[in-house]
Amino acid sequence: MRTRIEVAPDSPFGPEHLPYGVFAPGGDDYRVGVRVGDNVIDLALALDDPVFAHPELNPLLAQGPRRWAQVRERVRELVDGGLSADAVFPLAAVRLALPVRIGDYVDFYASIDHATNLGKLLRPGSEPLLPNWRHLPVGYHGRAGTVVVSGTDIVRPRGQRRTDSGTPDFGPTRRLDIEAELGFVVGVGSALGSSIGTGAFAEHVFGVALINDWSARDIQAWEYQPLGPFLGKSFATSMSAWITPLAALESARIPSPPQDPAPLPYLREAEPWGLDLELCVRWNGVAVAHPPYARMYWSPAQMLAHLTVNGAATRPGDLYASGTISGPAAEERGSFMELSWGGTEPVTVNGAERTFLLDGDEVTITATAPGAGGARIGLGEVSGRILPAREE
Amino acid sequence: MRTRIEVAPDSPFGPEHLPYGVFAPGGDDYRVGVRVGDNVIDLALALDDPVFAHPELNPLLAQGPRRWAQVRERVRELVDGGLSADAVFPLAAVRLALPVRIGDYVDFYASIDHATNLGKLLRPGSEPLLPNWRHLPVGYHGRAGTVVVSGTDIVRPRGQRRTDSGTPDFGPTRRLDIEAELGFVVGVGSALGSSIGTGAFAEHVFGVALINDWSARDIQAWEYQPLGPFLGKSFATSMSAWITPLAALESARIPSPPQDPAPLPYLREAEPWGLDLELCVRWNGVAVAHPPYARMYWSPAQMLAHLTVNGAATRPGDLYASGTISGPAAEERGSFMELSWGGTEPVTVNGAERTFLLDGDEVTITATAPGAGGARIGLGEVSGRILPAREE
Repeated sequence: MRTRIEVAPDSPFGPEHLPYGVFAPGGDDYRVGVRVGDNVIDLALALDDPVFAHPELNPLLAQGPRRWAQVRERVRELVDGGLSADAVFPLAAVRLALPVRIGDYVDFYASIDHATNLGKLLRPGSEPLLPNWRHLPVGYHGRAGTVVVSGTDIVRPRGQRRTDSGTPDFGPTRRLDIEAELGFVVGVGSALGSSIGTGAFAEHVFGVALINDWSARDIQAWEYQPLGPFLGKSFATSMSAWITPLAALESARIPSPPQDPAPLPYLREAEPWGLDLELCVRWNGVAVAHPPYARMYWSPAQMLAHLTVNGAATRPGDLYASGTISGPAAEERGSFMELSWGGTEPVTVNGAERTFLLDGDEVTITATAPGAGGARIGLGEVSGRILPAREE
Repeated sequence: MRTRIEVAPDSPFGPEHLPYGVFAPGGDDYRVGVRVGDNVIDLALALDDPVFAHPELNPLLAQGPRRWAQVRERVRELVDGGLSADAVFPLAAVRLALPVRIGDYVDFYASIDHATNLGKLLRPGSEPLLPNWRHLPVGYHGRAGTVVVSGTDIVRPRGQRRTDSGTPDFGPTRRLDIEAELGFVVGVGSALGSSIGTGAFAEHVFGVALINDWSARDIQAWEYQPLGPFLGKSFATSMSAWITPLAALESARIPSPPQDPAPLPYLREAEPWGLDLELCVRWNGVAVAHPPYARMYWSPAQMLAHLTVNGAATRPGDLYASGTISGPAAEERGSFMELSWGGTEPVTVNGAERTFLLDGDEVTITATAPGAGGARIGLGEVSGRILPAREE
């Protein structure tokens, strides 16, 4: 029996979008699917190709951009022309898994407004941006093994917390925060000793996902010198269940803001890879921020060129994220550290004054972007709820 | 035909050692082997068990310490009693591969002498140890995808280099360095939200390997604030081809040096996991340093307890390293940055005054430790040679 998938004309998951994920219709038989409206197409069934019969996108990622374009075209034909009813599942009836087996995870710091805000909060009285910031996309490696799919509960982490006395205490973090970010999934890797120039970005990167880089600010503040964030970040990083392919973001491409000083040659771009995404951060259902990805100083093509300029290898499934997305306006800040200005200016959420996350809180980040033909697409959300810290 | 493996009585790879690796007798058919003297036992053949018929130790790692002990006992019986000649290969006739598929790679900073030396070199005139150093094992995530097996050539990385002008320049690193370290391979992982107490160290960690954490000091110096080392380290980290199981190091266990202040409860140890290993760093064949692992301030059990106290998950094949091993004496320093005191006090190597690495240089790190019955065991070496930077 063949079926046509019905999609509302204003759906953010219409036929111009077609993001990829990993789902199980029942049990644990996870495989690759594409979301259309509130349905999932089982690609292993619909396209009769074993590359999709894996609980991860990695085999497809490794096949490269020509193949990605063919699959996208073929899925579009199925959506337009109908497909076997056996291969379509209602989204509400399936379980979603982390879509990618992540190799290395790198987190950048590419928003000039975020870096400036954190500089003012952490180093008051000195120049907010450190001398290297305008010369290179600052980044560091995070923990790949604790990237979890949207919807996974987040247990409040314990650790050594900075106190005013100079001696740490130990316990559950009191300053649990979010970072609203955009993540980039590497498809085709690069060999040790080679680099990926800015012009080769789309040859290597498959697509994007929303990321919430949960952060324990009191743990981070105590541990991070001189080697950077560690336990303040490594307890969990949430990722949306749906990866939006770059091909769906063609209409969202815009030039990045001007860069001063001009970047070194390896960071210059012939084609723009700024992206006109508008994020929305909801705290217990209340929209508290609208971070504009369009304002990011460093583009994702520049980030990847920098990541590999030293010859570091990349692999299918590597993930790198933008760092917190913040704009210049107060309501454009992508972390609660910034929104509450270090905890000193509470945010009103459902009538209560709030600074950092309490147990039971839920945060959901969404984003929209211009799609083809005037449509608007919506990235898969990234959501998580805070559970109390474990007892000793 | 059965054979008995001949091993010289003073071999560092005698029957008390039995380290694990991944080898191919020919072609690319890599599988798990154990080294005895200058021979490799093919475990898939000798023990007729498919867990060894993989190009990585990970399936064995996941089986846990009871199984590791059984395999070690069984191999000892084969070495004592003889085994099929088909299952034994001369070391010189096989190829060796990276023994473990590494999940996450964390690098610590656990030597008080190294941290003090770097503090003096990088922040002259201020307190060398930062306030957090004696409270927790400082660490950060490195790049798992660029860990390479001993013997892999290292291409000199390019990147933005710090200059005295405050503006970076770009090119091949001029301060290419080593870091002599000990790495710990996680066997049994731990779930997200759980922690590994110091007393459970041997339930989770399979064994140790020598690590050379190649470092480009001029790239690192420019990039590392505020998020830590990135491209100055991520181009390559070398690992010995042989993993020495913890069981072979029982006679090397010693108490760690006293800790002041007393660590927080989660970092206290009932049983000591200091290790009496003596390293040797050879620069173009000349022994230039003998770093003493016995002097490390933080034990590997403390490092793992810290890494997981926030609930971070671990996986079979995760690797964490000690950071540079340095003792208080000049000839005990495990990096050229320290040996040459920031490049100001050259080291004499084969009659030449040297500070950092030149193209064509080769560095080999070895280590010995007390084995059972008064024998001395020698860890598998980690070695690498510097190739010139790529042309543009």
